[in-house]
This record gives sequence, C-alpha cells and structure tokens, in this order.
Amino acid sequence: MSTTMTLNIPKTQFAAVVKSSDAPIQIEKDHPVKSPSQLAPGECLVHLVSTGVCHTDLHARKNDWPISPTTPLIGGHEGVGHIVAIGDHTVNCPVKIGDRVGIKWLAYSCLDCEQCRSGREQNCPHAKLSGFNVDGTFSQYVVSYVHHVTPIPESLDSHAAASILCAGLTVYRALKYSGAHIGEWVALPGAGGGLGHLAVQYARGMGLRVLAIDTGEEKRKLCEDLGADKWIDFREVKNLVNAVKEACDGKGPHVAVVTTASAAGYTQAVDYLRPGGSLMAVGLPGEAKLDASIFFTVFKSISIKGSYVGNRQDAIEAIQIAATGKVKVHYELGRLSDLKEIYEKLENGEVTGRVVLDMSK
Amino acid sequence: MSTTMTLNIPKTQFAAVVKSSDAPIQIEKDHPVKSPSQLAPGECLVHLVSTGVCHTDLHARKNDWPISPTTPLIGGHEGVGHIVAIGDHTVNCPVKIGDRVGIKWLAYSCLDCEQCRSGREQNCPHAKLSGFNVDGTFSQYVVSYVHHVTPIPESLDSHAAASILCAGLTVYRALKYSGAHIGEWVALPGAGGGLGHLAVQYARGMGLRVLAIDTGEEKRKLCEDLGADKWIDFREVKNLVNAVKEACDGKGPHVAVVTTASAAGYTQAVDYLRPGGSLMAVGLPGEAKLDASIFFTVFKSISIKGSYVGNRQDAIEAIQIAATGKVKVHYELGRLSDLKEIYEKLENGEVTGRVVLDMSK
Amino acid sequence: MSTTMTLNIPKTQFAAVVKSSDAPIQIEKDHPVKSPSQLAPGECLVHLVSTGVCHTDLHARKNDWPISPTTPLIGGHEGVGHIVAIGDHTVNCPVKIGDRVGIKWLAYSCLDCEQCRSGREQNCPHAKLSGFNVDGTFSQYVVSYVHHVTPIPESLDSHAAASILCAGLTVYRALKYSGAHIGEWVALPGAGGGLGHLAVQYARGMGLRVLAIDTGEEKRKLCEDLGADKWIDFREVKNLVNAVKEACDGKGPHVAVVTTASAAGYTQAVDYLRPGGSLMAVGLPGEAKLDASIFFTVFKSISIKGSYVGNRQDAIEAIQIAATGKVKVHYELGRLSDLKEIYEKLENGEVTGRVVLDMSK
Amino acid sequence: MSTTMTLNIPKTQFAAVVKSSDAPIQIEKDHPVKSPSQLAPGECLVHLVSTGVCHTDLHARKNDWPISPTTPLIGGHEGVGHIVAIGDHTVNCPVKIGDRVGIKWLAYSCLDCEQCRSGREQNCPHAKLSGFNVDGTFSQYVVSYVHHVTPIPESLDSHAAASILCAGLTVYRALKYSGAHIGEWVALPGAGGGLGHLAVQYARGMGLRVLAIDTGEEKRKLCEDLGADKWIDFREVKNLVNAVKEACDGKGPHVAVVTTASAAGYTQAVDYLRPGGSLMAVGLPGEAKLDASIFFTVFKSISIKGSYVGNRQDAIEAIQIAATGKVKVHYELGRLSDLKEIYEKLENGEVTGRVVLDMSK
Repeated sequence: MSTTMTLNIPKTQFAAVVKSSDAPIQIEKDHPVKSPSQLAPGECLVHLVSTGVCHTDLHARKNDWPISPTTPLIGGHEGVGHIVAIGDHTVNCPVKIGDRVGIKWLAYSCLDCEQCRSGREQNCPHAKLSGFNVDGTFSQYVVSYVHHVTPIPESLDSHAAASILCAGLTVYRALKYSGAHIGEWVALPGAGGGLGHLAVQYARGMGLRVLAIDTGEEKRKLCEDLGADKWIDFREVKNLVNAVKEACDGKGPHVAVVTTASAAGYTQAVDYLRPGGSLMAVGLPGEAKLDASIFFTVFKSISIKGSYVGNRQDAIEAIQIAATGKVKVHYELGRLSDLKEIYEKLENGEVTGRVVLDMSK
Repeated sequence: MSTTMTLNIPKTQFAAVVKSSDAPIQIEKDHPVKSPSQLAPGECLVHLVSTGVCHTDLHARKNDWPISPTTPLIGGHEGVGHIVAIGDHTVNCPVKIGDRVGIKWLAYSCLDCEQCRSGREQNCPHAKLSGFNVDGTFSQYVVSYVHHVTPIPESLDSHAAASILCAGLTVYRALKYSGAHIGEWVALPGAGGGLGHLAVQYARGMGLRVLAIDTGEEKRKLCEDLGADKWIDFREVKNLVNAVKEACDGKGPHVAVVTTASAAGYTQAVDYLRPGGSLMAVGLPGEAKLDASIFFTVFKSISIKGSYVGNRQDAIEAIQIAATGKVKVHYELGRLSDLKEIYEKLENGEVTGRVVLDMSK
Repeated sequence: MSTTMTLNIPKTQFAAVVKSSDAPIQIEKDHPVKSPSQLAPGECLVHLVSTGVCHTDLHARKNDWPISPTTPLIGGHEGVGHIVAIGDHTVNCPVKIGDRVGIKWLAYSCLDCEQCRSGREQNCPHAKLSGFNVDGTFSQYVVSYVHHVTPIPESLDSHAAASILCAGLTVYRALKYSGAHIGEWVALPGAGGGLGHLAVQYARGMGLRVLAIDTGEEKRKLCEDLGADKWIDFREVKNLVNAVKEACDGKGPHVAVVTTASAAGYTQAVDYLRPGGSLMAVGLPGEAKLDASIFFTVFKSISIKGSYVGNRQDAIEAIQIAATGKVKVHYELGRLSDLKEIYEKLENGEVTGRVVLDMSK
Repeated sequence: MSTTMTLNIPKTQFAAVVKSSDAPIQIEKDHPVKSPSQLAPGECLVHLVSTGVCHTDLHARKNDWPISPTTPLIGGHEGVGHIVAIGDHTVNCPVKIGDRVGIKWLAYSCLDCEQCRSGREQNCPHAKLSGFNVDGTFSQYVVSYVHHVTPIPESLDSHAAASILCAGLTVYRALKYSGAHIGEWVALPGAGGGLGHLAVQYARGMGLRVLAIDTGEEKRKLCEDLGADKWIDFREVKNLVNAVKEACDGKGPHVAVVTTASAAGYTQAVDYLRPGGSLMAVGLPGEAKLDASIFFTVFKSISIKGSYVGNRQDAIEAIQIAATGKVKVHYELGRLSDLKEIYEKLENGEVTGRVVLDMSK
C-alpha cells in the first residue's frame, strides 16, 4: 500500500524564517517543501490552514530562555491543517491522508523512555518542540509525526482549534492536575488574556467557582460573559492578597493557575491560597525565580506544581471539550506576512486575546 | 464516673519559661501545675518522662518567624508522659488515666473546620501549637488534649518516641505524600541530622533507594549503617547538582525531602530532580525564599509540596512503624536544666543527631 | 454561658414509632421529648421542619438487612430543623441555638478512631445511624450531635435540603470518588429516581457527559430537562449492554453509578463499562451478590468501588453545590401521618422522585 | 545502517504447537523460523534462553475462557532471550541486536489509542497476547516487538527474570495500585504459590506487613523464610474470615491480593478486609463470578480493583526491583519436551512454585 497519494504538493512555499538568534524574521517565498519521498517512517507532511501565535514564539525568536532554539528555524506551534503525505514504511499509523490534525508544541516524543511510559511525554529527553528545535507551523507545509498529531473533530473550526492546541491544552492540563473539584474556588490571574480566557471556560465546565483577576473594562466584560463568578481588577484594589481571600469565602481559593511571567504572581498566590491549596505554575519566563516564602509554603501546606503543556491524551481531551461547545476561543485573525508586527505588538503587550494566522491567505 | 483519680499531683513543678520574646530561658522551680479540677472538658494533664529539643523551639524563643509565639511561654513539643488527670465532662474519651502518650507540635485542632474535616488538622485555624501558642513540654506537667495525644506502644521507649513525634512525623509524612514508591530514588540533604537520619530509615522501610547527602565521616558512617544506598559529601564534590543526578541512574532522584533552612537547598533540588519529580519542603526558615527557577519548575514538571508536620493519623503511623523496629532514633540525653546550653549549641550547629531531655531527672 | 435557652420545648410530641421488628409503624401523639438538661455534652436537640423518606427507612422497618436496627425505633435520616438546645459542658461547639441544620444517616461518629482519622467517618465502629441504631427524624424533635449536624445555607429551602442529606450526598460522593473528569461519560441506571435525578445534576455540574438509563416518558422528560446528554429506555432496547456502549462513543462509559438493589445492574455495568472504568456501588440491597464476571473485571481493569453515604465534608459540599442552584430536588410533600401509606407505595414502586414530609403540619 | 546482522539464524526450530483448540500439544522439530527479511518495521526476532510456564497457558490450550485463542498456536508468555534481528525501517528503536530482553503476556499494544495514551497498554483493543493471539515463547525463536520487549539487567538471571515477567509483574502492579503503604497489612491467599511467593517479597519490600495464607508445612516455611509477618494455614482454622481479621490487629487487612480462581476467595476477602480496604483481583478464572455481598462492599467502603498484568513501565519496575536482590524466584527447571507432563501436573495442582523451561537444552 502506498501511503503517499499524489496530492498537489508544491516544491516551495511561503515561510517565516529566523536565520540566527539575533536575526529578524524573514518571510521567504521560496522556502523548500520536503518531498513525500524524503519523509522518514512515522513522519507526515501537513498542509496548514491555520496557526496561532504564542508568547513562547517570541521567546524562541529572542532566545531569552535558559535553553536555546535551533537556527535557522521556522517558529509556530499551534497549527491545524490536512495530512497530505505519510512516510513510507510507517506502521500502525493512526491517521490517514486527508485527515485534519493539529500540531502542538510537543511535536514528537519517543514513546519509549521512562517519561513517555509514565505519561509525561512532554518531559521526554528526545522531545521535538515545534518552532524550537524542529521547524514549526509558520509555513504552508510542515513535517510532523503521525503518532503525535491531534485529530480535530468536525465540529471545531480550525482557527479555534489552533489556540486550543497550546493555550487551551496548557490551562486544561493545569486545571485537571490541580485536584480541584466542583464547588471549589480557582483564582485566575490574567483571566482576560490568551490562556486566561480559556481557563475561565474550562474551570466553569468542571464546576469550579472562578475568580477572574485582570484589569480593564473590556477584560472584565469578557470574563463575566464567559461565566466568571467574581472579578477583581488588580489596579483597583489596595491589597490584592486580601481582596482575593475575601472574594473566596474569606479563606482564599483552593487553586490558582498562574500564567504570568513575573515573580510577583507566584509570591501573591502562596499568600492568598487557602491552606492545602495548589498553585499551578504554567508560565515559562526566562529568568524569574519563584521567590515565594518557604515558611508559608510549608506552614500552609501549599503545593506549587509545574505543569508543562500536556501529553497526547490531554490534548485530545482539551480539543474534545472545546468541540462540544463548552470552550470558545476569542481570537483575531492575521496573516503570515503580518508576523513581524504581531511580534512587536506582543512584546509591547498590545495584543488582546489570541492572534491566529489564516494560512490560506 | 470520676475521670480524675487522685494521683500524687504536686502544686508546683520545674519548668523552663520564656517571659518575653527577648528574654532568656529561665528554669523556674515553683511553676504552678494546673489542678485537675481546672481542666476543661477534653483536656488532660500529662506527667512528662521525656521531651525532645527541636530547632523550632529555637525559632519560638528567638521570635524570628513571620508569626509570633505567645509569652510568657514554656517551649517544647516532643513530649512523652503519662496521663494523670482528665477534665470532667469529657465525652468519648479515647484515652484513660495512666496511658503513656505523646504530645506533638500540633497539640490541638478543632476537628470541625474545613481543614480538619479534610484531614489537614495541622492547618486548622484554631490550632494550638505546643511551646508556641500554648505551653509545651519543657516542664514536668503539661495540659494537653485527649483527642490529640498520641498513644505510645509498649515496645517503643519514651526517649525514642519523643523524637518521632516531631522529627519522625515530619519526614514520614513528607515521604508518604511524595508519591514515591519502591525502587525510586530519594535524595536526602542533611541525611545525617535530626530529621535526616530518620528520613533515611523511613525511606528504606518503604523500599526507596536512598541518596544521603551530608558532610563528614561520622555522618557518612551513620547514613551507611542505616542503609543508605549512596552517599555524597557535599563538601567534596565540585558540582552537587551533577553529582546527585549521576548517583541516581544519571537522571536524578524522583523525590527530595528538603529539611534545610537555606534557599540553596531548594534551588539545587529543582535542578537535580528527575523531570516529574517532587520536592518535599519541610523546613520552616524565618525569612528564606524558594528562589528556584520558574522556568525549570514548569519545564521539568516539578512539584514543590509544602509538608507541615502531620495529622493524628500520620503521627500514629510514624510511631507504629518505629515501634516495629524499622526506625531507630539516635539521640543524646540531657536534662531540663541544660536547656540554655543546648540552645546555644543548636544555634552554633554543634549538635549531632537529636537531643532528648530526661524529665525524670 | 448557658447554652440551653428557654425556647418553648414541649414535653411530648408526635412521632412515628416502630415498636419491634415485626410491628407496624405507629404514630404516637405523646412521645416524650428529651429535656435539654438530659442532653450529654456534644448533644443537641433539633426541632424538625422537614424530613425525607428513603428506601433505607423501609429496610430498617422490615429488618431485611444483614445488620439489625434497634427497637423500639423512630426512623428517618434526612431531617432539617433548628437547634433548640445544646448539652451542658459542650466544648468547641461549631453551632448555636437557632441554627438551621441537617441530620443525615450518619448521625455521629467518634472522630477519634482510625476510620474517622482517615476521613471515613461513615465506617466508624462507633457510628450512630439515624433511624437505625438511634432515633431518627420521624418526630418533631430529635437529639443529634453538634459535631455532625450539617449547616444549611440560607439560599436552600428545607425540603430540598432534606433530600440532599442522603440521596444527594450519596450520589455526590460516588461521583467525586469515581475519578471521572470533565468530558468523560457516566452511565446512570435509575436516572429518573430519587438518587438518580440528583446524580444527573451533580454529574452535569462536574462537566461529565451523562447517559441516563430508566424507563417511561415522564422520567425521560425529567432527565432531559435536567441536562442528560443521552437517554436509554431499558424496556425499549434489545441489548442494554450494547446500547450503552454504543451511546458512549462506541466504547462504553468511564463510570457507572449503580443505585439499584438488583444484581443485574452490577453484572451489566461490568460488561458495558469502558476498560479502566469504575463502577460506583451505592445501593444497599439486603441479600444480592455482585455476581459479576471475575474474568472481565480483571481483563478490563474495572474497579468496583463501594461508596457508602459520605462524611461531614462530603455532606457540606453536596449541600453547598445545591445551594448555588446547580442541583434541584424533585419531591412531593407529605405529612408524618401519611408515613404508612408512603411505605406501602415505596414497597410497590409507586413513588416517583423523592417524598418529603412537612413536619410543621 | 543494516539492523539485521548475520547471526546464525536457522530455518527451523523446536516448538510446542497446539494445532486446534481440542488438540494436544505437539513438539515439532522443524517448525519454521521467520526470516529477518520478513520482519515488519518494529518487529524483532528473539532467540530464547528461558521461558516460564503459567496457568494462563493452560487456559489458552483448553480454551475455557470467554475469549478464544488463535490456532494453530505456540503458547508461552514469560520468555527471556537475545535479539538476533530487527525489522528493516524500524525507527526510534530502543533496543539493539544482542540485547537480552523479556517477552511478556502483552507482546504488543498500539501505543496510540485512548487506553495506551492513558497508560493502560494492557487494555489496548489492538493488543497482541503472547501465546494467545500471537505465537508465544514455547519455541526457540519468537517474533516480538521492539517497543514492548523488556530489557533485562545484567544482575538478573534469565530463569528468574522469566517468572517476573508475568507472575512478578502481575502481583507487583496489584500491590502498587492497591494504595497500601508502609505499615499496613496485606493478606495474600495462595502466598506459597507461583504468584503468591513473589507477592510476599514485593509486599515486604514496600514495608507492608504480610499475612501469608496457604496450606502445608513446605509453604509455611517458604513464606516465613521470605519474611511474612504472620501465617495462616487455611485448612487448620475453623473460621478463616475471623482468623484473618484477628491476625491483622483484630481489624482485618488493608489490602488483599486475590490470585485464586475460585469465587470463595473474593467473598471471603470482602468479609475480612478492614473497612475502606482494597481487594486486588488478579486471577483470570474462566467462569467464576465475584459473588461477594453488595451490602458489605458498600457498607464497608470496599474497593474491588481488577488488575490485569501490567504495562511496560510496571514490567521494568518489577524487573529492576528483582534485580536489586529484593525478590527471589523459586522455580524448578524443565525442558520444552516436558511441557505435556507439566500441563498435566499444573492441572492436577501438583506443581509447587514456578516451572521454568531451559530453552538451551
């Protein structure tokens, strides 16, 4: 059986390439497309229709993390598209030509090591990270991996699915592993942002009571429309810690999902969490330290749990929940050619919600 | 039924009293003993035979924590003695006059609040802490609480039991809640100390592979005698993080129980832990911050779990395990009248193992 | 402080008494009320406004369980009323005169034994069971226990609260301990019944996908109105096991909460559950055996978990979730004097939903 | 790179073949060996040095399970040998020619489906079961799967490793998932048998207190030599349930691992388990029903957990623990040509411990 049908796969494509860690993004019109015959067993070629832009892409481009990206590199790790080719000699292939699939930050893991065997695929030492150490989704075609792409249900549109694959997955897993259950309070600093507004909805879906923390009228309205039980504008309270405790039965929330890059978000959370509570850490700032009080972490029996994206099962669950209509992504559409300006806006904090690139344009 | 038998209870006693937060310890010979008729329902009077001295006592005396002790105060929170009186109108009393029982840091919790109902008695907002906000065990007689004292099995001697009630309980609960299972690696910085040498034994009892970290020939020998699988002298390695990883299959330990007061212990543990691993935080330094990398906490899926002493069930388990002979306490005996010098030694780091006061002398 | 205010407490009351295990229920008009001065420390007297009638009451009356009730006995274990007296010498009392509280099946546990310390208060060997081995709520006044009564929030009406205290609590705990999470399927045989219709709502509140199984147009409509995702009328399908599997992605549900007294409900659930799934057993039939295939329990990695009412924390959570409006009780009101006829109807399976007695009439 | 070295692989081999479900085992001298060039990607050819004989093999031969084996079939699912060939186009291969590896009951799972993604590889709908629906280890060479074979550490001899791969793995996983922790009691009916004597050792290694239940002086001695804390000869007690409860603090064990094929083992365990306890079900009888009291399963909050062999991580852990010397396998050696008689002995209950075939003879 030949798995490489002759679909019209071009030789070259548009792609946003970073040549070296200090180089600007360059949109190349004639970047080569890998030929189906060059695909290794287990690889597939995906024709993208949509890709999200994430703060992490900015870290990759700026190389300000303690680990370094490969260059030259094509960024992007929230892609949705159709499989147009599958490598010869691929066995037990769970997808087929024509399937619409998602590509996430974790493009590949070995599925054999201790971490993979234990369900922590994202901690696989052989992990390939989209747009970081393998080419990502800021191009028309991308090579991905048949055992790792995420099937997209028909009821979910591609632009929405793109944002679920990273922002949605990240907050979904954090909530899932937080141990919070129906009726408990979760605090969501940054609730109006790209990750936050999805967290509000997953948390509501689980029956949690949501305290949205952010600033500004627009974000307040968004959070309340999405079902947040309470809202705190952090610019309008004198003492955030006290205000958060007060809002949650006077005892503080059971869980906080901290997406911020600043150390203050962590320090405050240890202070406002209810004893026995969990701080789910999901942000990946380059340099910041936890900087929380050891005394109160111990004295209050607080757990600070690093939650790093998610594995294949988490991704499928996050996507399926969104496909039932429980989670709506708020995004603005852009194009690949706008990427430079979008990065500038992201850096200046001028982006509201999520930006998704329509790759068909 | 009268529950207050006429045992020979004196009117006054020896007691080590701290009059105010900046006062020295004073040994009083004629400190009053509470009369049985003054005991409230649920209270009991315990005639002490033994009490441990813990670093926490030093914090209480120096008042260098973010929370403040009551004064005047009698310190001490690792006591073993016999019940000599029980308050009138005590119902459902699980102990009786003559029982040998232990008094731990958590002298009392309400057993009614959300924290108590959820098994986190140590986080009860009404908690009474021995030698901190109620009088502790540095006296011949102490008032305690029938629903909270820990029965001591016959096979366990009182001096050994004393140290289990705080140091043993603390490390036992941390190991129990770490999620580590047979065959996994646990790193124990400070393995030769008061908490550490008990942690070595509980960990071995659970089938964990133990990497003992400490310094000096005496502590090395102690750790190896207690069954530690590997030993690292932190003064003799160039790069502790690499050495710890190397010792544990080249991948790092699954769990670290960090008893140290210094921030470095936490930073290092996040670095050397295996991805997915747990850092059990049990030390209560006054000022130190976690100071660990947020990036690697998230990227490596590390959980930092504050574990604060333990509840009644944890205490009973820790004591029962010790009573089967699996855990031996290494202590040197002192007297109440030596307390001042013992504090000085503790402060100067001159104490090896645990100090226990023989209260019969 | 006197805790026994002089409220108008009568000397006698109406009560439904079972004199011996083969005697019929008798409504007595002059059953004695315990005087406040007779209350032991920790006891309180509750003036009832509402009490539910449960199938369990029928078991108690008929004495057809492997454990036997005390006689003479007043049945009833879903009561709501106001505290009118508290025993002298009660310490750490979490309630006060005038509080509206609930009385559940588990009227009392010692809070001291291994089971209580581990959060399984319902398995306490000293447990007192309302209407089984202590007098229950089929009377105007009942003695209860200050550490075990459940506070009722203002927003919840007493008749609704009554049914939550047993039926609601039972299914809530079963769902909570099932391990099911948002997006997973739960099968609810008997979904239109007293326990079932509450289970539909708690399950929906947790974000589960609900397959309601029952029979008849009325129950179908109720289940769908309450938000069930799918419905199966067990009388209208040829092969229930196949129909259930088919309804849940073709793979079967992740969890089933089996409230039925018949062995068939268990056998079928092991057959239709998805591999790795959990069968939550909550019914208490007198004689029935599990009768499920050992082979498939093992081969499919099924867990069959006995879930018996719930502890104080479970009860408070179940009540609070209902108080937020997420769970509505469907009940018909009766009076204490109707109890005999209600039992007859229950025995003949003629009761739809839950019956609650208005004790003010 | 060619992964198929020219090792001396013969064209034919000895093999024990079952032609059809009612046919006797036949030792064939000229059974074909699959040529390396015929191996699919991901397959490997293993030259066996040892293979265990398990009761399950007897079920496969007799076809008395509710699921049917493929025929003609070669049985056997506890094999150890060396890899002599790996299929072309195998990618991410975690093993290499010459590696000593184990083959277990679960020869293959897809690693892609919901069950595999969730760590329940043994419940994969595409599972291949050694000696059941793919050829097993009762031959000199067997085709296996590179992502599923278990590496054998140098310190473990092949005959011992063979028994760990099924009997050891099964009881290890059951204990691991039982939730039992150090100091708790585990009852092991059949403690002197093939699975039981390994369970004694794993349980002891985890710090559990072991109550061994079996019969006869030889088994008593074995269990006590292996460290069982207590022993009950079920033929010598009048009331097993009471005797078991009595032996375990008068309250019953926290966990029972039931390996028996008879329903009585399950019924008794529900009766003797401590409230809140877990019955780990690991036996795979053809017809037996659980037959335990629903009333007491619920009333005592008992969990009955089906535990079916284990996944790759469980197998590696079981092997590594054995390799540290904590678990010794008691086996008697046989030869492939003895298989018929061994089956007869197994059927008549005449085998003590485990039988392992030395395939080099």
